[in-house]
Amino acid sequence: MADYRQPVVDVPALTTLLDGTYVEVRNLTRKRLVEHAQILQDAREMDREDFRERVLQVVKELAGTGQTGMGFPVQYGGGGDIGASVAAFETMAFGDLSVLVKVGVQFGLFGGAILQLGTQQHHEAYLAPLVRAELMGCFAMTETGHGSNVQALGTVARYDLESREFVISTPDDSARKDYIGNAARHARVAVVFAQLEIGGTSEGVHAFVVPIRDEHGELLPGVRVEDDGRKIGLNGVDNGRIWFDDVRVPRENLLNRYADVTETGVYESAIENPDRRFFTMLGTLVQGRVCVGGAAINASKVALSIAVRYALERRQFGNPGGDEELLLDYGLHQRRLFLPLARTYALHFAQEVLAGQLHAVFSATEEVDERTRRALESRAAGTKALGTWHASRTIQECREACGGAGYLSANRFDALRADTDVFTTFEGDNHILLQLVAKGLLTDYSSSFGELDQLGMVRFVAGLAVETVIERTAVHKLLERIKDVLPGGDETWDQEAGLLDPAYQLAMFRWREEHMLAGVARRLKRGMDADMDPAEVFSRCQDHVIGAARAHVERLVLEAFIDRIAATPDGDNRVALVLLCDLFSLSTLEADRGWFMEHGRLSSARAKAISREVDNLCRKIRPIALDLVDAFGVPAEMQAVEMLGG
Amino acid sequence: MADYRQPVVDVPALTTLLDGTYVEVRNLTRKRLVEHAQILQDAREMDREDFRERVLQVVKELAGTGQTGMGFPVQYGGGGDIGASVAAFETMAFGDLSVLVKVGVQFGLFGGAILQLGTQQHHEAYLAPLVRAELMGCFAMTETGHGSNVQALGTVARYDLESREFVISTPDDSARKDYIGNAARHARVAVVFAQLEIGGTSEGVHAFVVPIRDEHGELLPGVRVEDDGRKIGLNGVDNGRIWFDDVRVPRENLLNRYADVTETGVYESAIENPDRRFFTMLGTLVQGRVCVGGAAINASKVALSIAVRYALERRQFGNPGGDEELLLDYGLHQRRLFLPLARTYALHFAQEVLAGQLHAVFSATEEVDERTRRALESRAAGTKALGTWHASRTIQECREACGGAGYLSANRFDALRADTDVFTTFEGDNHILLQLVAKGLLTDYSSSFGELDQLGMVRFVAGLAVETVIERTAVHKLLERIKDVLPGGDETWDQEAGLLDPAYQLAMFRWREEHMLAGVARRLKRGMDADMDPAEVFSRCQDHVIGAARAHVERLVLEAFIDRIAATPDGDNRVALVLLCDLFSLSTLEADRGWFMEHGRLSSARAKAISREVDNLCRKIRPIALDLVDAFGVPAEMQAVEMLGG
Repeated sequence: MADYRQPVVDVPALTTLLDGTYVEVRNLTRKRLVEHAQILQDAREMDREDFRERVLQVVKELAGTGQTGMGFPVQYGGGGDIGASVAAFETMAFGDLSVLVKVGVQFGLFGGAILQLGTQQHHEAYLAPLVRAELMGCFAMTETGHGSNVQALGTVARYDLESREFVISTPDDSARKDYIGNAARHARVAVVFAQLEIGGTSEGVHAFVVPIRDEHGELLPGVRVEDDGRKIGLNGVDNGRIWFDDVRVPRENLLNRYADVTETGVYESAIENPDRRFFTMLGTLVQGRVCVGGAAINASKVALSIAVRYALERRQFGNPGGDEELLLDYGLHQRRLFLPLARTYALHFAQEVLAGQLHAVFSATEEVDERTRRALESRAAGTKALGTWHASRTIQECREACGGAGYLSANRFDALRADTDVFTTFEGDNHILLQLVAKGLLTDYSSSFGELDQLGMVRFVAGLAVETVIERTAVHKLLERIKDVLPGGDETWDQEAGLLDPAYQLAMFRWREEHMLAGVARRLKRGMDADMDPAEVFSRCQDHVIGAARAHVERLVLEAFIDRIAATPDGDNRVALVLLCDLFSLSTLEADRGWFMEHGRLSSARAKAISREVDNLCRKIRPIALDLVDAFGVPAEMQAVEMLGG
Repeated sequence: MADYRQPVVDVPALTTLLDGTYVEVRNLTRKRLVEHAQILQDAREMDREDFRERVLQVVKELAGTGQTGMGFPVQYGGGGDIGASVAAFETMAFGDLSVLVKVGVQFGLFGGAILQLGTQQHHEAYLAPLVRAELMGCFAMTETGHGSNVQALGTVARYDLESREFVISTPDDSARKDYIGNAARHARVAVVFAQLEIGGTSEGVHAFVVPIRDEHGELLPGVRVEDDGRKIGLNGVDNGRIWFDDVRVPRENLLNRYADVTETGVYESAIENPDRRFFTMLGTLVQGRVCVGGAAINASKVALSIAVRYALERRQFGNPGGDEELLLDYGLHQRRLFLPLARTYALHFAQEVLAGQLHAVFSATEEVDERTRRALESRAAGTKALGTWHASRTIQECREACGGAGYLSANRFDALRADTDVFTTFEGDNHILLQLVAKGLLTDYSSSFGELDQLGMVRFVAGLAVETVIERTAVHKLLERIKDVLPGGDETWDQEAGLLDPAYQLAMFRWREEHMLAGVARRLKRGMDADMDPAEVFSRCQDHVIGAARAHVERLVLEAFIDRIAATPDGDNRVALVLLCDLFSLSTLEADRGWFMEHGRLSSARAKAISREVDNLCRKIRPIALDLVDAFGVPAEMQAVEMLGG
């Protein structure tokens, strides 16, 4: 067993390390959060309508400071730095999340659609006022009947040759736009995704700028809006439903970066394949997923900061006559908090890599090749899924670990948990996102990233030899790397020393990913060879598909953590990070030890050794736990105020 | 593989089977819930103060109908039937849970304490008005600094010989009463748990009736109250904090069923041992835990009813040109909903056994032996823990499985999830409860149930030979039963046919329990033999202690399910129950397959076979899923109304 030196953490240095490239942006954002700390209390005390207005006010104030526009071009009042805008958004997740999500809706979704799908005329018309939050807008994609399968949206935009307008209509209630942020009250303009129809021919889903309210906030003719009402959380955001009854907009309101309609009604696009075109458009909106994942990871940091602090004050039972034990001295309590703590660090570094790649791709002066874009989209999808699930589970565990105190809204778990809950759903349902990841891996991004649907993927994979799948995909590269580390049998590895070897940990993660992917390919093929219905084939191995994707993303997470440690100079902070990385990787293996044993990759003795080592690592983390959460740099004002009646 | 007949479920008959002994009480309660269905909407729309008054009003109306007093003696206006009162309470969990919890506070905790800890004078004085909800009261046990270790409460009740009064005082803020339902607004009387002091000697925690408000709702002198404010859920219940500043009550206000103080200040009790006395008092309050567990299980039924219905309407992806697939046709979606569905059925039957035992013990005309009481308390603790965790996880999964629609408060997951969240904490934190269960098993209830604290348990077990522990405890009986079924090796069992054999399933559950308990005993001994600090010994095997308790309770759950099926006549409904029971037991084994493989009780081939069979069972349940949730008999008014925009 490794003889870790017990590290003394340099908290400010660790915070700086975590803050990374954008340490100044993050510190500035922290300052703004503290200035607006009152909103946390307002969220608990105001009624819904008042709180919506309050959140709008904060968003406008923030916009005035440049806080929310960092990602937009300088000529429209933005900061011209995508990486900075992600860092600012992530850090805002320490504060009220209605503010965060309204910022996301206005600047990420609405502003992002104008920026990415529009052309200069749209930029000139809309960007400056929207960056100043004078022109509020919404992003009207999801419909009640269609959330995940957006290619099948029901809203129609028919081109009227005579008037040279698009006519937007909602054919039935399942095609009403739903859950649309800013729709119920504040949006004057909507970016509406609708099936473009020209002369009776459908050209697929495109985005249109559609005014929905006048400057006094009155709905325009033909637009009907219904409030989505109270939600589990995020009640400072005015979500609503929209119906369009033959609403006419000029031809220029098509966001025409990737496709256009001439005055005479001719459809033109540089991208031939309609699927590819659609998913190229969607791909430009990847920043939203990156931001949501990062925000979720940061919300977890708030919960852990509170729960660790509570566990260091609250006592329970103990030796008669003596002091009672601190909660954090209980082995189970350590497991409850330190496993998510380690995973939070791991996801933080994975998110850092992802945000860096996003910045590189979207700031590139030369054309970025499509494969790189698809890999970015896949990584964003996977990190968003794991990060948001992690937030839900971690915040819940922290709430429970604080008992009755955790149930009081004043102690923040209420808002953290309720507000982040929908993160697993919006910007792409997590299960669907992991299916996209798996599809990318199985087809080696040979098609545009959302292009093949589930059944398309089944048919695609079934059309290849399994060997070909393995050859052609990301899998074979893994195999090479694994062979160097993992010999054939378990015996060679059946000594505890190796457990803390990052090469061993990585090899295990890679082996799992490779084996799961190959297994999915085999099962898909077998099903199709047996003449099963593709839908049935997919249904039967859906959990394997998702398991393989999860294994892939977890491997990326571990690699990011190990790489970050390799780039960290020797010292106590590095020792602390190694402890966390070991705890992340071993607890991940422990959680999946059933699978590893089933597949002959883990002996029962070694599985037990992993569990012992996890306990051991928790005990080593115990003395530095407070430092490790303090290093997140969550402002004191964002943490609980009355946990212990003090 | 067993060739199940595909059953056609007789829904009304299955509802009747589930409703059991108290079918009429449950149907009457359903009727009342429907009459008060408006409260579900009020909960979403009213502000906190108004909603508290509204909930009070409903509670009073229900009290007027006899709905809430079924467990009290007939001479005080009650129904004289404990089992009926549990059934009524469980069923009320289909409706608004603030109403449920306020009923629990008033009639279960406050009324229960007067009934169980008081004597005839207290019954005469308080029961009739409290049963009519004219006298509202609260149960002031928990303090900010002491929730789980209630023997160490800080509030003091000093006997003043001169005035023959008790003087109640709060020594510091950590001893303020906290999270006390009815305290912030409605309670006129509190049952206060405090350290009884006579002439400088402490006699341990006792309960006192302390008036806190006059008839106009004004606080009495010396009583300070603070509102706990907004909570994650249950905002119709007015939780608060109470401080006592030398508040004097007459000697008669000691609830003196188990101990008394004479006028001259002599302490008298029929129970010599103070620990035993205290836990005997607490033991009489077991009904609260039984009720909370049952309510949690029923709240899960509401969530599953909504989520299954949604998954049968919502479509997603599909063959081009054809209909999209129903969500419920996806294999993963089946796993997400049917595993908790099967477990809900299993817990339902376990709860039925528990409620029956509660009724038997508390309705017995002869003295019930202490061992039976301890076993009941243990079973109540374990079922409460598993039932409430199950509710939290199930409701959350159902919310996520309904996507954006699940996030809207109108669709009920908001209240279900927020309101039940604290069930894992109140009436005993689940982890502490499972520690109590383990302690009972390890010491064979040789001491009063709560009597030994954690360290006492460590010392007790360490003082015995491991063989003795195994001999003396519940474990050895299990061993005998296992031997009949499980031969030494896996080989004999390594055929799929056996998986669906209930004898095999039970043997696996029993083997796990036995092995875990013996393992805990060994580890406790080993630690003490190595001269470790008992607190450290306990900390290090705390998760094993809790794992053993969980294994024990799950075994009780499976036994209850199998017994219930054995008592069910042949027919399609029985076939359906067998499907659910198999799914419950195999998915439980699957979830813990890592442990079974580590301990040589499951081969990797057999583990994979279990997973295949779980998938297979899900597909068999798919056609009857709607019937299986309909059989819960959740009134339509309690289910979501606008899931699909219809």
